[in-house]
Amino acid sequence: MEKKLAELKRRLLEIDDLNGATAVLNWDQATYMPPAGAAARGRQLATLSQLAHEKFIDPEIGKLLDDLRPYAESLPYDSDDASLIRVTRRQYDKSTKVPAALLGAFFQHSAATYQAWTQARPANDFTAVQPYLEKTLDFSRQIANCFPGYDHIADPLIDFSDEGMKAESVRALFSELRTQLVPIVQAIIAQPEADNSCLHHSFPEADQLAFGKKVIEAYGFDFKGGRQDKTHHPFMTKFALGDIRITTRVKTNDLSEALFSTLHEAGHAMYEMGVSENLDGTPLASGASSGVHESQSRLWENLVGRSLPFWQHYYPELQAAFPEQLGIVSLDTFYRAINRVERSLIRTDADEVTYNLHVMIRFDLELALLEGSLAVKDLPDAWQARYQSDLGLQAPDNRDGVLQDVHWYSGTIGGAFQGYTLGNIMSAAFFDRALAAQPAIMAEIGRGEFATLHGWLKENIYQHGAKFTANELIERVTGGELSIDPYIRYLRTKFGALYNLS
Amino acid sequence: MEKKLAELKRRLLEIDDLNGATAVLNWDQATYMPPAGAAARGRQLATLSQLAHEKFIDPEIGKLLDDLRPYAESLPYDSDDASLIRVTRRQYDKSTKVPAALLGAFFQHSAATYQAWTQARPANDFTAVQPYLEKTLDFSRQIANCFPGYDHIADPLIDFSDEGMKAESVRALFSELRTQLVPIVQAIIAQPEADNSCLHHSFPEADQLAFGKKVIEAYGFDFKGGRQDKTHHPFMTKFALGDIRITTRVKTNDLSEALFSTLHEAGHAMYEMGVSENLDGTPLASGASSGVHESQSRLWENLVGRSLPFWQHYYPELQAAFPEQLGIVSLDTFYRAINRVERSLIRTDADEVTYNLHVMIRFDLELALLEGSLAVKDLPDAWQARYQSDLGLQAPDNRDGVLQDVHWYSGTIGGAFQGYTLGNIMSAAFFDRALAAQPAIMAEIGRGEFATLHGWLKENIYQHGAKFTANELIERVTGGELSIDPYIRYLRTKFGALYNLS
Repeated sequence: MEKKLAELKRRLLEIDDLNGATAVLNWDQATYMPPAGAAARGRQLATLSQLAHEKFIDPEIGKLLDDLRPYAESLPYDSDDASLIRVTRRQYDKSTKVPAALLGAFFQHSAATYQAWTQARPANDFTAVQPYLEKTLDFSRQIANCFPGYDHIADPLIDFSDEGMKAESVRALFSELRTQLVPIVQAIIAQPEADNSCLHHSFPEADQLAFGKKVIEAYGFDFKGGRQDKTHHPFMTKFALGDIRITTRVKTNDLSEALFSTLHEAGHAMYEMGVSENLDGTPLASGASSGVHESQSRLWENLVGRSLPFWQHYYPELQAAFPEQLGIVSLDTFYRAINRVERSLIRTDADEVTYNLHVMIRFDLELALLEGSLAVKDLPDAWQARYQSDLGLQAPDNRDGVLQDVHWYSGTIGGAFQGYTLGNIMSAAFFDRALAAQPAIMAEIGRGEFATLHGWLKENIYQHGAKFTANELIERVTGGELSIDPYIRYLRTKFGALYNLS
Repeated sequence: MEKKLAELKRRLLEIDDLNGATAVLNWDQATYMPPAGAAARGRQLATLSQLAHEKFIDPEIGKLLDDLRPYAESLPYDSDDASLIRVTRRQYDKSTKVPAALLGAFFQHSAATYQAWTQARPANDFTAVQPYLEKTLDFSRQIANCFPGYDHIADPLIDFSDEGMKAESVRALFSELRTQLVPIVQAIIAQPEADNSCLHHSFPEADQLAFGKKVIEAYGFDFKGGRQDKTHHPFMTKFALGDIRITTRVKTNDLSEALFSTLHEAGHAMYEMGVSENLDGTPLASGASSGVHESQSRLWENLVGRSLPFWQHYYPELQAAFPEQLGIVSLDTFYRAINRVERSLIRTDADEVTYNLHVMIRFDLELALLEGSLAVKDLPDAWQARYQSDLGLQAPDNRDGVLQDVHWYSGTIGGAFQGYTLGNIMSAAFFDRALAAQPAIMAEIGRGEFATLHGWLKENIYQHGAKFTANELIERVTGGELSIDPYIRYLRTKFGALYNLS
């Protein structure tokens, strides 16, 4: 049995090496690659992914997993080896159930769709991508149908990024959330708008990056095992446990852009940095799900990084870094500026309160498309209608409407968006437990100290990597199912104070 | 036949993708990788190299090459397809003749030797690496003996980097060169030493990099398909035809360091950038040999970049970039400074005239070790004796003696050094032909124009990639065998004028 486990780990490590190499090539593509390198880079990435995929779906791995099942079942559920065998088995089944030909055709189609989208979006031309999207919907259904026995056709697609989550339970959770959120948004909108002009002076790039770096170092981001570079879109990537990188983009006329994307990506990175060394080089050495991952980025970005105690400590330092721009701006003004709530058209620009409305619109539209109750050709109108009803806004065009997010134009329809809002809900649920266990955390944040919070998160979430599904982890950490209550409580308390809500 | 050729190319392209990925990972390791990433990176690199090697020695490739031989022989020798089949066959034979077990053991030994050397060099402790080096010598002989039928045991090792070159012919060429060089060095040393203090003011890094970038852009280095970054040791690397990168290091108190390493690496890069697109993704898409590659780096670094016409054009621009440091320094003083000849202990710091003496010492010692006429334990004394006789110098220790170069401590003994001096000899032989064909070249260099020279090199050398061996290429370009005459003529003319030699 030991020999078989060692052989499984050897094979998984080789696949991990290929995936790590793929991540390096992707990172370089987004950071430093000269333009003429693009064509070959695409080919190199395809070759590496293909090799990693071939090695993972090797029937020999299936056989090792079969042989190791009794051994896994003889061990505690949360032991490293039992978890490795269990989680690898699930991933193996997912990877082998979609026929290679279907997957290949879908990847080719996705690449073409993405290309079409890069042109259609600036041209505001939904009809140019409509036939692609119709095919994407067809592919998405075909892929879902490789996993018969689902309750909802979106379930297998959701399961790819948020294992164990199901359309109906997510829909119920989101419906409850929307019911609570809409009145909060309405109450805020009725108040005078916060002034955020202090964020829009001219802030030199190097000073912005230096400040962000100082904060995330204090958070616990380890620059001996990571770094930050600039890209068009911020992201976090992992090459190995000792090499986890984040990227950001800087707008000299918007202080919040680089700063909060840095805190956000650092949250993702610290999760990966905190995974137990014992899981390194295996499928367990990653986050539990896209929702849990997002919970950590949002926790460090929002629950910590947009909190009043945080800025009570850091605002004088920020003022010292930008004395001309912020010297005469009060902490209160600044705090209100970075927490300004407004109804807007673009998801990625949205504040903490309205952000989830954007996500839930997309989630509902995905389900409607998959269910067949909405046709792709009617998607732009459905989009507009929901923005009107949920946010009271009318997008002037499809560019800032249905064409705004890359997700549907580079992957399946279904499973793309729920993780963002699940992450927000979880961030508050986890933070709530951290505060209950370690009541000193908020006071420490007010002194620019984060070790207790970081330690609690490592102990309760990070170290486990992908051992547990999101639901298993939530159960372990909170003692129950995912609840929106801590999140709504958090929003009511924070924004109630900011906007004098009753 | 077409299907077999297509299948060969498909397999070679996949291997090329893996090699390109390996190059990206190596580049990142030297440029941006955080320290904690090192262990996993070593593993990822080993996995990629192993995969590429396995795919290349696949007997199916041997069979395709066998089947394609009649087709290749039916085509003109210099056609793309005939060259591809011929050159791939030679590389395939080389890769398959060394047993995998021997190669694996040698790589493991090399990694351990390198580790030992990184400690032994600063500690000035040759005895710490002596047992490693004895094993390296043994491995080198074993690898050479995988290719029976050689004239000299070093021939197979030389052939790895300078295909077709042989120990005896290189020894004869070098002996002739030394005979000519030593009196030139002696005559120069008898003259007053040139003053190079103007290079040792303080030169800000960014300005140094900007000036180097401007020059190599004028040379023809294409920044749309390449870039420059900083590393501990300068190098050139290729990820694909459209992504060729160079690195440099900057010393703020030595203007020559970054500038000439930039021109040198740009020469390597422009060679790779000039390879015909038709050869892309095959073993032909690289330089012909280490010597030919070095000829191009040395040509752009020295024959162009340290020439008087070049600086007649660029010196005013350099003065404008560094007015405080160089404003009152005359062109003549600067030109003498960058061409100062002096006997020194370190190969990589040596000037154009003495450089080859360093290389030839190493080459002769390699041969003596392989022949068995020199024991590893006697290598430090032999080194000292040759530096005394050839350069009139006594190294104070082994650190700046036999421990100075990484080559023997990271690869075979044999084949490591001859390419540097072959490259110098070739650089003048090729430049001589370029000037004969295009007499306007020197005048154009004096105007900061390089298109005619670059065009001639592309046409006659670069586009062919690795189609021809060094000797074949020299025959095509110069009409005969490699001769030291153009090189000696070049040195006599240039340094005769600089040092008033008769």
